[in-house]
Amino acid sequence: MPALSPEELYLFDTTGFLVVREVFSPAEVDRFRKELDALHPVDPGFANTRRYHDLPATSELFAQLGRDDRIVHRVREVVNQPLRMLEGYGLRRGPDSVLYLHGGNSELLDLGNGTVGRDMSITHTYHDGRLFCPYVKSLVYLSDIASPDDGSFCYVQGSHKANFPLLRPRAERGARTSLIDEGFPTLTDVFVGAGDLLLLNEALMHGTRRKRTPGDRLLVAYGYGPTYMADWRELDGETGDLRGTGYVDHDVEEDFVHP
Amino acid sequence: MPALSPEELYLFDTTGFLVVREVFSPAEVDRFRKELDALHPVDPGFANTRRYHDLPATSELFAQLGRDDRIVHRVREVVNQPLRMLEGYGLRRGPDSVLYLHGGNSELLDLGNGTVGRDMSITHTYHDGRLFCPYVKSLVYLSDIASPDDGSFCYVQGSHKANFPLLRPRAERGARTSLIDEGFPTLTDVFVGAGDLLLLNEALMHGTRRKRTPGDRLLVAYGYGPTYMADWRELDGETGDLRGTGYVDHDVEEDFVHP
Amino acid sequence: MPALSPEELYLFDTTGFLVVREVFSPAEVDRFRKELDALHPVDPGFANTRRYHDLPATSELFAQLGRDDRIVHRVREVVNQPLRMLEGYGLRRGPDSVLYLHGGNSELLDLGNGTVGRDMSITHTYHDGRLFCPYVKSLVYLSDIASPDDGSFCYVQGSHKANFPLLRPRAERGARTSLIDEGFPTLTDVFVGAGDLLLLNEALMHGTRRKRTPGDRLLVAYGYGPTYMADWRELDGETGDLRGTGYVDHDVEEDFVHP
Amino acid sequence: MPALSPEELYLFDTTGFLVVREVFSPAEVDRFRKELDALHPVDPGFANTRRYHDLPATSELFAQLGRDDRIVHRVREVVNQPLRMLEGYGLRRGPDSVLYLHGGNSELLDLGNGTVGRDMSITHTYHDGRLFCPYVKSLVYLSDIASPDDGSFCYVQGSHKANFPLLRPRAERGARTSLIDEGFPTLTDVFVGAGDLLLLNEALMHGTRRKRTPGDRLLVAYGYGPTYMADWRELDGETGDLRGTGYVDHDVEEDFVHP
Repeated sequence: MPALSPEELYLFDTTGFLVVREVFSPAEVDRFRKELDALHPVDPGFANTRRYHDLPATSELFAQLGRDDRIVHRVREVVNQPLRMLEGYGLRRGPDSVLYLHGGNSELLDLGNGTVGRDMSITHTYHDGRLFCPYVKSLVYLSDIASPDDGSFCYVQGSHKANFPLLRPRAERGARTSLIDEGFPTLTDVFVGAGDLLLLNEALMHGTRRKRTPGDRLLVAYGYGPTYMADWRELDGETGDLRGTGYVDHDVEEDFVHP
Repeated sequence: MPALSPEELYLFDTTGFLVVREVFSPAEVDRFRKELDALHPVDPGFANTRRYHDLPATSELFAQLGRDDRIVHRVREVVNQPLRMLEGYGLRRGPDSVLYLHGGNSELLDLGNGTVGRDMSITHTYHDGRLFCPYVKSLVYLSDIASPDDGSFCYVQGSHKANFPLLRPRAERGARTSLIDEGFPTLTDVFVGAGDLLLLNEALMHGTRRKRTPGDRLLVAYGYGPTYMADWRELDGETGDLRGTGYVDHDVEEDFVHP
Repeated sequence: MPALSPEELYLFDTTGFLVVREVFSPAEVDRFRKELDALHPVDPGFANTRRYHDLPATSELFAQLGRDDRIVHRVREVVNQPLRMLEGYGLRRGPDSVLYLHGGNSELLDLGNGTVGRDMSITHTYHDGRLFCPYVKSLVYLSDIASPDDGSFCYVQGSHKANFPLLRPRAERGARTSLIDEGFPTLTDVFVGAGDLLLLNEALMHGTRRKRTPGDRLLVAYGYGPTYMADWRELDGETGDLRGTGYVDHDVEEDFVHP
Repeated sequence: MPALSPEELYLFDTTGFLVVREVFSPAEVDRFRKELDALHPVDPGFANTRRYHDLPATSELFAQLGRDDRIVHRVREVVNQPLRMLEGYGLRRGPDSVLYLHGGNSELLDLGNGTVGRDMSITHTYHDGRLFCPYVKSLVYLSDIASPDDGSFCYVQGSHKANFPLLRPRAERGARTSLIDEGFPTLTDVFVGAGDLLLLNEALMHGTRRKRTPGDRLLVAYGYGPTYMADWRELDGETGDLRGTGYVDHDVEEDFVHP
């Protein structure tokens, strides 16, 4: 029996994400929160944000969660390749934190010999009844996020299949603010409760609103992809020996926003 | 100045490969042959074939060759992503060796939850004037191959963009011989000389004819792809912890041929 | 100078439509209304709806409007082929009228030899910075539509690029009501004023809400496509001599809804 | 039972055409020849070529042939839309006749607002096991064509899925000869016998060699497409009222060749 209903698959395909409600019980959410409390986060360089690195290596509970059928069975139906976990981490955010927009199917990437509008690590396709999304993230929410002021997940409609870039042309027209703050006709919020699962095609342009409410905003996230993909790590660019492994970013809002 | 002329790019796009003649001089070919003679090959399990593993690690000369601009500048124009070398190896083949057909854009891959017609490690696309081929191989020939009996490279026309699978449906109709031997209307041979470079989109269904002439057939090969791709290694399937890295094969002729 | 700004083109591409506000002045809207008042509508078989057929043939004013640069210049940038007008008509709707959902990129079409998930008359693509939408409709609103009860235009997000069908699978699960009434997570309303122009990729699944307010809801619509496309007329199916011309519908909500 | 075998469908998909041998008997070929002998050809403006216009209208025999199941059943499996016949004609060619290259998936088309690399009347796609080729031609050969000097059909490999244009860039580099005469690495000949059927995706770049042998070269041809496509007729460009119907050519060799 498929893990995703036909309507869920239709929604994931057409919108680039899917929220499944109450996948994890309040008791499990509590256990995940307590486990994170016992781990040591680092400062990732974002305001009022703490990051728990490499959860599969630092916590047996979170290693298991990354293999939990409730996540993995769903992920399989949108990756449709021999699967591996590319990363697993937690994020604890406080007031005034924000996550600017990133992703987008045709944002630009500078190479030595020019600029291209594809990042193949997120370029997805469809064939014979199956989606093939090479980079799918699963967000397990451990807080309720009921309004933009709670720092809600937001996304630009249809951006996971956009044929045009958005961010660089906008910056070239002089824009220096984030769409998170300035707005965009198709920027849309998603509200979730603790225990909800959000399945995300990383080609979707998404971020979070600026959190303005007190309390923390806690989640754990896992990235999945085909087995030929390397563990996620940021790579500034090619290494001289052409053996360096990692993910080189295409344009994201941080590149253009000067708050 | 582009490394590939417009006609070369058109040919690579429409046929899935490109031969560039006499890229390496007779003196260089001689040097590469001598270097291989001093290295220790292994038996890869193919008849009358010796394989030189991981040349970038075992030979400074071949590490350099894998970064040689004459190869890399051309590869960049068909990968168009931050680049890395996925593998480098040599193959020395004697009489009666053969390489059955493999590759193909829509050959089938069995997963736990069904069968799919995409192997994303070779799924390529085009956008705004650029090709995006995630797996490109460069073959540096160190022998002349002037006839099918020399074990020529052969390919199925248009298979790098095929919408249908070829091998499994054929096997299901009872075929147990290789197309290499049995023939196929669009199976086509390519003849090369020592020093020629063959640039290959790994989505092309290709192999080599059965070598029947004396002497060896020697080449070195390098695989390239985007930096997020792992070193090439065969993976039988997913590992239990979902952390295993490698390349899982879709259908190839070996799966069906019983000589 | 392009008729669509980069943001407008991004929105049309990612959402399948674009509203341009106040393209036509109140005086023009008034003139269009008066012209329709003088023409003779027919009963198209939808409740409380009157249709003005073939406006380019029955009214010089509306023949001109179909060639008006404010419409045509915009249409050109999303068709990008030698252009023709495929149809031009008006719709006057009263209370209790509704337009069920139709369109969708992968809804099903029955042929003699099976069922297919493409209607090529609306199948669009992108190449080298240009969209190629073969069927684009321009709606010129002559009424304000400020709420769902005014019978607002509504659409299913991302349906113009959907890889899966929605309507038939839903009907096969037993659904016999319209999504217009029942709702769907991504069914979204668009509100407009008289004089606004809505540019529509006919691959988008769209319809209108059930009108519940008094007064009429008036618009004129023009369809455009490449010059090789025939005038719009409904065709039940092929004619015996294979010479019949027209548009054969894929699945639409009317096929399944039994109110 | 499908009219095309899996291998035939694979070949049509990967090469853009398919030859089916001896579809029509020698007696039928004889009958078709006699029928053409009784009709009145016109001079289409190509050297030593006579064209029989609109065969479905001028001959009941050829109207029937255009609906013959041996043709139409095969065509249906590559169009996969409600079908119509767009044209039917005969060509009788004598010595020194030639047909320069035309077609190609990405050749250029000039519009008022720029140049595009798609002609949507030949833009084909694939979805869920089906090809969707909007313009498919069936050539019924009434002569044996056994060598290039007989004026054989020739094509550029993979051009029906080319991402780049070939002809205009070549002309801009100064070329003023036809590839038919000058050659191209992937220009390939197809030899046929009287009674053979050639099924052609019009997106393939194709032509015929220069006929140098005596005797005539005779065939009848039928074009098919979805029911929304107009009868084939050449259109120089849009008409002022935007109602003109027809096919506007993208770049073909005639545009650039000055013999």
